[in-house]
Amino acid sequence: MTDNKEAYPPHSRTTVKRLPNRGVYDYNTIHSILDSIPILHVSFNPPTSSPDEPQFPVVLPMLGSIGNFANKSQTLNTGPQCIYLHGSSAARMMRLGSSSESQGFPVTVAATKLDGYVLALTPFNHSCNYRSAVVNGLAYEVVDEEEKMWALTLITEGIVKGRWDGSRVPPTKAEMTATGVLRVEIQTGSAKIREGGPHDDKKDLRDHASVERVWTGVVPAWETVGDPVASETNKVERVPQYLNEWVEEMRILNEEQAVGAALRD
Amino acid sequence: MTDNKEAYPPHSRTTVKRLPNRGVYDYNTIHSILDSIPILHVSFNPPTSSPDEPQFPVVLPMLGSIGNFANKSQTLNTGPQCIYLHGSSAARMMRLGSSSESQGFPVTVAATKLDGYVLALTPFNHSCNYRSAVVNGLAYEVVDEEEKMWALTLITEGIVKGRWDGSRVPPTKAEMTATGVLRVEIQTGSAKIREGGPHDDKKDLRDHASVERVWTGVVPAWETVGDPVASETNKVERVPQYLNEWVEEMRILNEEQAVGAALRD
Repeated sequence: MTDNKEAYPPHSRTTVKRLPNRGVYDYNTIHSILDSIPILHVSFNPPTSSPDEPQFPVVLPMLGSIGNFANKSQTLNTGPQCIYLHGSSAARMMRLGSSSESQGFPVTVAATKLDGYVLALTPFNHSCNYRSAVVNGLAYEVVDEEEKMWALTLITEGIVKGRWDGSRVPPTKAEMTATGVLRVEIQTGSAKIREGGPHDDKKDLRDHASVERVWTGVVPAWETVGDPVASETNKVERVPQYLNEWVEEMRILNEEQAVGAALRD
Repeated sequence: MTDNKEAYPPHSRTTVKRLPNRGVYDYNTIHSILDSIPILHVSFNPPTSSPDEPQFPVVLPMLGSIGNFANKSQTLNTGPQCIYLHGSSAARMMRLGSSSESQGFPVTVAATKLDGYVLALTPFNHSCNYRSAVVNGLAYEVVDEEEKMWALTLITEGIVKGRWDGSRVPPTKAEMTATGVLRVEIQTGSAKIREGGPHDDKKDLRDHASVERVWTGVVPAWETVGDPVASETNKVERVPQYLNEWVEEMRILNEEQAVGAALRD
């Protein structure tokens, strides 16, 4: 599936082993999944005090965005890219990023979007439609002020398009100091996509008693958004146009994606 | 926040360091979050061939369910509990579970639900409403046939209530052999919850130019489901009642949760 497309190099860490035909390695697929999912799951190994203790990776839900300050004209089709993550500069992970500034520290970033519940004749063949991407890379604290500002704009715009200019910018010096940004330079990655209806075994499809009794198909699932709820301190009477457009787009595109996935073969 | 509630013991691994007032440790909160999120992110360290290579944790999106075969009468309010995960018995993780059967291997399971986008006066105070739970535990392959069948029922029912009996059961011997189930015995865990509207700085709230221009509030977000799409091989004309009820419940409860979170203080 990676023919004629630029892709991350195969690596034993990220090669999809189970159902390898679901594995995709091209830049565009991996980046698009990461780009369309607001909450990323970021995993890393904290320095342990005792080497005898079991090594539990840390997993943190974080907001982030795909981008590359060193090559801003890159699109999702090109790579390698970076993921910019933001958090408090006091957070453990940010401190890890600054203490190992020269080397970076290894992180794994996962993003998964559920597109539907796939109901087959048997529990065994039940599945989900989903898109997931998992990438490995080294994380560095962003110290360059220009790159940091650019990354924060990227992350804010990645959540709600139009919001950066729609809010009080630029951030103050104190805000910038209190905010930490990590740049994860993606080394390897893979995506998995499952679409379409259930795949039942031929034997089960010939079993009339089951086929007559068991409804099979897909229940599409997607993230939708509600009408904006103004805060108690809000003084702007009308919801701004960029926000209404974004709400409308989220509702339509996410539903289309999920229903489309249910109907594909 | 854990007064008078049974809770997982505090541990440096899982204590919420950033914004500690968002950290919750009681059984019910942690279990309810894990229970309400279909896709869990499971992280572990694979055995590495070279100790000099950077240690990237593996992260896999998996389906799973909270439960305890050894004490089936446990509710979400009691603990400690287990998470049952299922996958192909050929999957790398399942093999890890069986090879280290006696000891278990350390895994971290994370579940995050986005409840809304919180739009403040400044990008710095933007946030998300969400519920997340992260637990650590040792994972064991489930070898007892009765426990395995029980766990598969739990996972299937945890996705769509009524579906186990609504499909062709029990699984065949071949299906059972091809399916692997892991039991993660939770040792420690924590949850983080963010609800309500934006928290703007007093200084910004006094800045009339910003307040008159910037709309602030919450855009609630939740997972919704579409009308069931029958498969090409489906022969059951009407969508079964348990499925329609589940669809209806998902739509209403998830929206209520997200809008409720936006309105809470």
